[in-house]
Amino acid sequence: MKLYGAPMPAPNPRRVRIFLAEKGVDMPETPVNLFTREHKSAEFRAKNSLGQIPTLELDSGETISETVAICRYLEELHPDPAMFGRTALERAQVDMWIRRVEFVLMAPVGAYWRHFHPRTAALLTQYKDYGESNVEVYANAQRWLDRELERGPFIAGDFFSMADICALSTVDFATWIGLPIDPEKANLTAWHARVSARPSAAA
Amino acid sequence: MKLYGAPMPAPNPRRVRIFLAEKGVDMPETPVNLFTREHKSAEFRAKNSLGQIPTLELDSGETISETVAICRYLEELHPDPAMFGRTALERAQVDMWIRRVEFVLMAPVGAYWRHFHPRTAALLTQYKDYGESNVEVYANAQRWLDRELERGPFIAGDFFSMADICALSTVDFATWIGLPIDPEKANLTAWHARVSARPSAAA
Repeated sequence: MKLYGAPMPAPNPRRVRIFLAEKGVDMPETPVNLFTREHKSAEFRAKNSLGQIPTLELDSGETISETVAICRYLEELHPDPAMFGRTALERAQVDMWIRRVEFVLMAPVGAYWRHFHPRTAALLTQYKDYGESNVEVYANAQRWLDRELERGPFIAGDFFSMADICALSTVDFATWIGLPIDPEKANLTAWHARVSARPSAAA
Repeated sequence: MKLYGAPMPAPNPRRVRIFLAEKGVDMPETPVNLFTREHKSAEFRAKNSLGQIPTLELDSGETISETVAICRYLEELHPDPAMFGRTALERAQVDMWIRRVEFVLMAPVGAYWRHFHPRTAALLTQYKDYGESNVEVYANAQRWLDRELERGPFIAGDFFSMADICALSTVDFATWIGLPIDPEKANLTAWHARVSARPSAAA
């Protein structure tokens, strides 16, 4: 099995590394050079037609891409500790929270990065007004998540899950591109300190 | 168990209805009036803080939102026919394809609807140039998916899955808002005819 990835600040490969660290699984990452656009090469697109990392290549030659799908596969190989929930209801709720994190929290961060940040301006056509409008969308997302975190210490409730991994990599990437956590969001700030203190967060 | 939804053309409630039809499960939908913005009421937000449908309310009072999470839960209650894959690899690949459909195919359709379509203009601030740019993004997504469909009759390979349901509701919604399938995309056109011919597509 071969895991293609890239170092920080790329948020998606980091999700898989945190997941593996939580599982105690040692799986070296095969680095893909994003600066030379190796991920967009014909050779890499044969593994993932979208030219994205992470991508997991099995010994059979079959490949799995999409961070959450890769982790879902690894969860079946290494079930403990469960990161996608232990019961049908927990599994549905973790999946719900992963999706909420991606659609509500990650989407405006990605849109800001894609359409406003100077680092992507040379590569892509940007719609800057739209890009900048995502600052407010992300602020609203923080307000919503802060309220939701009244319920418990972690995103999906009382246990650390894949949803926390997705949210942690999102807010850290957002901070890196200039969108920090609002310190007045006390629950969100406390959650971030809590999950960042886990050894896996260094991955 | 109570399933909150809304009739066509809302794409997400339709996904659950198609899923239930494929399973042969009869579960009536409790309609939420989108025109009077019932989904944004305090009462409904107590069930789903994002004010979105579909939402599934269990007899215990717990709720699950996000279409794919709801279907994942229902898959555990009604495993046959499997709509999320039968093996670890199939499950990962279906999840990968669901995500690709949502991020690659659905995202530009949603952005065009949100930022360009006259029907949403009265409700929301639109960035029309950005909205319109998604016509080309969606065309590229169709080209990519058309090539991928060389592999087999369905999105995730040789069996009908949740990924097909997500893609069908996406392209039908896109057609409804003025973004039809390019008829030159022969594989995509044939796939659409194939999945639309299933009785579940009428749901």
